[in-house]
Amino acid sequence: MTVSLDAMSFVERIADGHRPSIAQAISLLEARHPGFEELGEALWAAGGTARVIGITGAPGSGKSTLVNALTRELRVRGRRVGIVAVDPSSSISGGAILGDRIRMGEHTRDGNVYVRSLSNRGSLGGISRATFDAVTVLDAARFDDVIVETVGVGQAEVDIVRVAHSVLVVSVPGFGDDIQMIKAGLLELADIHVVNKADRPDVHKLVSEITSMLTLEPRPESGHWSPPVVETVALAAPSGIDALVDALNLHTDWLRSTGKLEERTRRAAEIRVREIAKELLVESLQDLSAEDTFQDAIASVTSRKRGPCVVAAELVRCFAVPS
Amino acid sequence: MTVSLDAMSFVERIADGHRPSIAQAISLLEARHPGFEELGEALWAAGGTARVIGITGAPGSGKSTLVNALTRELRVRGRRVGIVAVDPSSSISGGAILGDRIRMGEHTRDGNVYVRSLSNRGSLGGISRATFDAVTVLDAARFDDVIVETVGVGQAEVDIVRVAHSVLVVSVPGFGDDIQMIKAGLLELADIHVVNKADRPDVHKLVSEITSMLTLEPRPESGHWSPPVVETVALAAPSGIDALVDALNLHTDWLRSTGKLEERTRRAAEIRVREIAKELLVESLQDLSAEDTFQDAIASVTSRKRGPCVVAAELVRCFAVPS
Repeated sequence: MTVSLDAMSFVERIADGHRPSIAQAISLLEARHPGFEELGEALWAAGGTARVIGITGAPGSGKSTLVNALTRELRVRGRRVGIVAVDPSSSISGGAILGDRIRMGEHTRDGNVYVRSLSNRGSLGGISRATFDAVTVLDAARFDDVIVETVGVGQAEVDIVRVAHSVLVVSVPGFGDDIQMIKAGLLELADIHVVNKADRPDVHKLVSEITSMLTLEPRPESGHWSPPVVETVALAAPSGIDALVDALNLHTDWLRSTGKLEERTRRAAEIRVREIAKELLVESLQDLSAEDTFQDAIASVTSRKRGPCVVAAELVRCFAVPS
Repeated sequence: MTVSLDAMSFVERIADGHRPSIAQAISLLEARHPGFEELGEALWAAGGTARVIGITGAPGSGKSTLVNALTRELRVRGRRVGIVAVDPSSSISGGAILGDRIRMGEHTRDGNVYVRSLSNRGSLGGISRATFDAVTVLDAARFDDVIVETVGVGQAEVDIVRVAHSVLVVSVPGFGDDIQMIKAGLLELADIHVVNKADRPDVHKLVSEITSMLTLEPRPESGHWSPPVVETVALAAPSGIDALVDALNLHTDWLRSTGKLEERTRRAAEIRVREIAKELLVESLQDLSAEDTFQDAIASVTSRKRGPCVVAAELVRCFAVPS
């Protein structure tokens, strides 16, 4: 009962934009501090007003600088902006390497901008839930826009941005083969294509590549959204950022007027539930594997008595799905 | 009984290096064709002789070109080489984009080299198992070296190379912030650091960065492996590739002489079982989510009656762990 009242007043402080409470809520949820479930529920119930913007792209596409410039333009238009940036540092190094977060420094003294970096730590994942929780807190804190930024490599990283209402995929001219491959895989996610570093020589080639890929897609029917291609320069003398915000607003209007907003909201809920369930299952698997029987099973694989697929299937049968 | 005999003669043809059988076995396992479990078991029992080499690095580090040059040098030394290359194309585009695989063309008419590309398709993963299966087949086909190449971004991609006896992490001079972050996260995986494109200007800076990072690590005790830093140029006029193979052979000798080989083999078995079990669990989750109760649960999240964490936990409780 006491906890319940606490959670409620906590949520009220967050809704008032109280920054220490926002920071604390994200940390409590991330650490799964006692009472975190109730807090999460109260925050979820309080939210649902923010526009969630997902930004992804290959490494080196200048996403962080773009987020910085985009935030500046959104602020000019009077919007309060929350940012959740997922750092692609691996589980091994254990923490976020915040190099490019420093560029966000320009907004640190703006009370209407809140930046939270999350590291991709923990070999059993957890980054999806941590990201979703941070979005939930910033949504409950009544930020008009919540930007989620991830590097678009790896399935989990890609799924994270799919909780957004609008997905921006950032490409840059030039670059090597495997970055091009990553880019190709991401393009179909895009509601808006951003060609960043558009002051580079090869920009027209890239824009026409993306445009021709879009032309190959099924013919736009009524109610179909044709993803625009917006050219930006985010560093030094920024350009195209106003056009990007216009495109974003157009997409928001389109979602609202066609009823696609409900579809997106539903998709976001499904991705959240599925990803969190996946993380919980992997944790249970981890618990199970500390047992002797697991170690014996591994020994039988090492000695080539049994194959890894058979042993894995046996392990999974321990998680009985009720009929 | 018939199936059992078939699987055995199939495995014998594979052990003789019969290329169509190798290709067919990888495809049968990937498609989970009826009988695939028995085939997988028979192949697993027949293997265990190959040296497995994992190669990973940030996008753009020239891994594929390096694998090509490395294969050439291993062939000069009389070794038969199997290659499993995981393409980082996303689930969305549906298939591998084989751009840089074309560079492997030089080896296509060499009967002692076998290249298999796998795409990172299917939103529920499956790439770990597909990769492990391909390694199992190439191991059973008595290739001396089996190279597994992945882009080192995303937890699954990183875990895949950890089934190797020796892990090579490829870095390149220059590059932007987020590639540096990825690199930093990968470095601790390395048994051998490869600084590729070593004809670039900033090479000494990168080598000294890696070296100083290594110096920060706990002091080498007896039986400790100090990862060497090898500078290579893989394109045009290759250099350093012979030194790389020497370093690889030294690591293999070290694994054998210290008993660490068993430890690595055990680690590989554990990663295989855990990753396959994870993929199986996620599939079961997918099956479950087609049911009406799942759709009702999502609707309660969308309407903000219940939060995604609570609903996910409820879903996972359907997978009861036996006490």
